[in-house]
Amino acid sequence: MKTYLDCIPCFIRQGLEAARMVTDDDRVQLQVIKKIMNHLMSVELTSSPPEISYHVHKIIRESTGSPDPYKKIKQSQNKFALGLYPKLKKLLDNSDDRLLTAIKLAIAGNVIDYGAAVRFDVESTIQKVLTTDFTINAYDKFKNYLSEANKLLYIGDNAGEIVFDMLLVEELINNDLEITFAVKPGPIINDATLEDAHDIGLDRYAKLITTGAQTPGVVLESCSSEFIEHYESADMIIAKGQGNYEGLGAEPNLFKLLMVKCELVAREIGDGVKVGDIIFINI
Amino acid sequence: MKTYLDCIPCFIRQGLEAARMVTDDDRVQLQVIKKIMNHLMSVELTSSPPEISYHVHKIIRESTGSPDPYKKIKQSQNKFALGLYPKLKKLLDNSDDRLLTAIKLAIAGNVIDYGAAVRFDVESTIQKVLTTDFTINAYDKFKNYLSEANKLLYIGDNAGEIVFDMLLVEELINNDLEITFAVKPGPIINDATLEDAHDIGLDRYAKLITTGAQTPGVVLESCSSEFIEHYESADMIIAKGQGNYEGLGAEPNLFKLLMVKCELVAREIGDGVKVGDIIFINI
Repeated sequence: MKTYLDCIPCFIRQGLEAARMVTDDDRVQLQVIKKIMNHLMSVELTSSPPEISYHVHKIIRESTGSPDPYKKIKQSQNKFALGLYPKLKKLLDNSDDRLLTAIKLAIAGNVIDYGAAVRFDVESTIQKVLTTDFTINAYDKFKNYLSEANKLLYIGDNAGEIVFDMLLVEELINNDLEITFAVKPGPIINDATLEDAHDIGLDRYAKLITTGAQTPGVVLESCSSEFIEHYESADMIIAKGQGNYEGLGAEPNLFKLLMVKCELVAREIGDGVKVGDIIFINI
Repeated sequence: MKTYLDCIPCFIRQGLEAARMVTDDDRVQLQVIKKIMNHLMSVELTSSPPEISYHVHKIIRESTGSPDPYKKIKQSQNKFALGLYPKLKKLLDNSDDRLLTAIKLAIAGNVIDYGAAVRFDVESTIQKVLTTDFTINAYDKFKNYLSEANKLLYIGDNAGEIVFDMLLVEELINNDLEITFAVKPGPIINDATLEDAHDIGLDRYAKLITTGAQTPGVVLESCSSEFIEHYESADMIIAKGQGNYEGLGAEPNLFKLLMVKCELVAREIGDGVKVGDIIFINI
């Protein structure tokens, strides 16, 4: 997805939000915003939002001197989501279709996103997602691929959310599948890193790798050869969240799971999709 | 009200919106945004939002070559509001307290604002406002001032909205009051100008003047001496909308009527005020 002009004020809003996590000094916050504006003045809109976001958050880290502005947030979101884990397991146990429910819960976890919006309510989102149909639904095709797959690549998104992903991974490994879970190689917004994945114990169920690129959604050109190898050799791929939707193109075996958080993404997907919709798409 | 860091992305969003009214060429739109960012990089946050907005919209007019990007919008909003006029009159005729209803309708008209948000629904807002209490209510004090006033200055806000203001002016002149209505001296966002005031026939009920300053809310330091004279000699003043809330300080005889459209203004007002609240405040 290309970057829209509307993304520009949104990048600045994100920068302000990140700066506020590091410092209460509004002079520093203003300096961060000015540096971001200075960068955005030379940017080309042919880049995808994750690519521009990479540079914006690099500026934030460098100008605040904080290597990981969202560190505390990520830790607390992991902890919060782990606290929900038993409840989520019970929801699965009581469901008619464990796999479908696990997929829906994984999408509900996608509400834990500091890039798109600061405020979110996880518990009410869980209830809403469980009782809402996908606006676009590739579940049948997903099950077909799953029945024949031996290697699955799961591209994660945010801290906290990865606990929800772990539940889906646990459902998937029942199918005797080798699962590789990809996280970010370093801090970018509240995206999950290896540290987060280890913290929640995701390594018990999947092989962990990184995308090799610190963009908030996967942009293949920037990824490591290790990641590309997994991407190309996987029988099927799950990509979580809006960032991965924005960064990745379409593949027959690529299933994107996301909650739509931005009007431009909704417009890009088309088909009458609105902000707040849950999407399970493979085109 | 001082400018918050959060206003910066909002100014850019406004600039994009205005640029889109003038041209479909996204290269021109991008140039406008870049020029706005370039200006904002040198701005001091001690200025009020209307002061910064003045420069932002000057940049938009100059770089798009359009002296009045919102001209068509303003004309159609005036026409739309005039179409509602008979219905609004009927609402007044059927109300228990004509003055209070006229004040509430004037606030409902304040939803016609392209600065704070592009989307609005006037008719549903009217219904909502009529059945909603003011979060802050200076109505009793207003009536006390009104009972002794001979000169009233009414500081207008947007095109379209001024039709709603005209209804309130008509109710007020029953009190044998000399009313002066102030509009902007030239185009700024969709704020009403003399042309708009004449178009809707407001000159039948009030003396028309301009603020002398093309800021979207009144900033006294920038206003003409004619306006200041009216401001200082008026027995009471009504100031409509968020822009005037932001630009003006407090006076014992100044009554601000607004719908809260921005979280920062809500926070600035305090007292648990939320976005969407209707406010009738004189401190």
